[in-house]
Amino acid sequence: MPKIVDHEQRRTQIAEATWRVILDNGMEGATVRNIAKEAGLSLGALRHYFSTQNELLIYAMNLVKERVTERVNKIVMSDLPPKEKVVSILMEIVPVNTETKAEMEVWLTFTFYSKSKVDIFDHVNDGIFQGIQKLMTLLEMNQLLKKNVNKDIEVERLYAIVDGLAFHAMQEPQRVTKEWIHSVFTYHLDSICIDDE
Amino acid sequence: MPKIVDHEQRRTQIAEATWRVILDNGMEGATVRNIAKEAGLSLGALRHYFSTQNELLIYAMNLVKERVTERVNKIVMSDLPPKEKVVSILMEIVPVNTETKAEMEVWLTFTFYSKSKVDIFDHVNDGIFQGIQKLMTLLEMNQLLKKNVNKDIEVERLYAIVDGLAFHAMQEPQRVTKEWIHSVFTYHLDSICIDDE
Repeated sequence: MPKIVDHEQRRTQIAEATWRVILDNGMEGATVRNIAKEAGLSLGALRHYFSTQNELLIYAMNLVKERVTERVNKIVMSDLPPKEKVVSILMEIVPVNTETKAEMEVWLTFTFYSKSKVDIFDHVNDGIFQGIQKLMTLLEMNQLLKKNVNKDIEVERLYAIVDGLAFHAMQEPQRVTKEWIHSVFTYHLDSICIDDE
Repeated sequence: MPKIVDHEQRRTQIAEATWRVILDNGMEGATVRNIAKEAGLSLGALRHYFSTQNELLIYAMNLVKERVTERVNKIVMSDLPPKEKVVSILMEIVPVNTETKAEMEVWLTFTFYSKSKVDIFDHVNDGIFQGIQKLMTLLEMNQLLKKNVNKDIEVERLYAIVDGLAFHAMQEPQRVTKEWIHSVFTYHLDSICIDDE
């Protein structure tokens, strides 16, 4: 079905053009007209792939999420020991390189913009809370969690640490470096897990 | 010097009008014209108090910070035991009621907007990182920190938890309630402090 693949490829290209427009001009600049121009398409051609601006924005945002999920799944399938696996996964969802920084910036811009547009926001949830619940379950199933640990609070706490660090890495990249974030995650995991022998 | 008091009072009123405009219309709506209208002043009168839009915005943002600082200082001066003091202070800087939610929303809108306007951003730093350094020092001076605690990482971790929870409380007020945030802070403090006798 080469036709369908082409269609999806073109939709992906348009989504990527949308990210570039958002990164350059913010959400206000993310008009169908500007996106078509960035993608090198006529307005009519763009409408062939996405009939409304909302449809396009939701697709573009979900694609960010899919790419992160893909990277995370690769680590999930790897044979790293559980604690290192968790740290590696956490490192994929904080902005520590050009790619993840752009993802985070697009995501934040979008979240912020869509606050007043509930119809879009309802469609997009970054899934990080649910992901962290799974990571905590992974640690629990491997009997790595300390005895006195409250799992619900630990999920909330790690979720806050992830988004807090992500936010600070965007604001202060010189101070909140990749290495420093890695140290904080490792320290945090060590604090809730039983000692390695 | 009644004249000066009046002048400052009027500047405060204009700053509060600025917050309302930002809350209602976002940063794009925060034009000098809209703010004058909200404050019930002519453009000329407003210019008497603030000669540029940047001057007004910086003043309005610093006033948010001052109000938080005032509330925090009251707790600092209270005779609560150190650990409870720290939790109470943390509760003042996360959005758990109408007042703190509005502060956070204004602050986030502003931070987000000013990212591209370095000249404003340089003037406004929320001071939370520095505040958390002080809280950690307070715990240390009272010999409450566990022996194996790394103070630098603990500052970074608590800073992330504070801003992460604040962000999530804005996004999911039903789930991330005041009581839940209080539980997370208390749990976190318990985890880094020696047991109470």
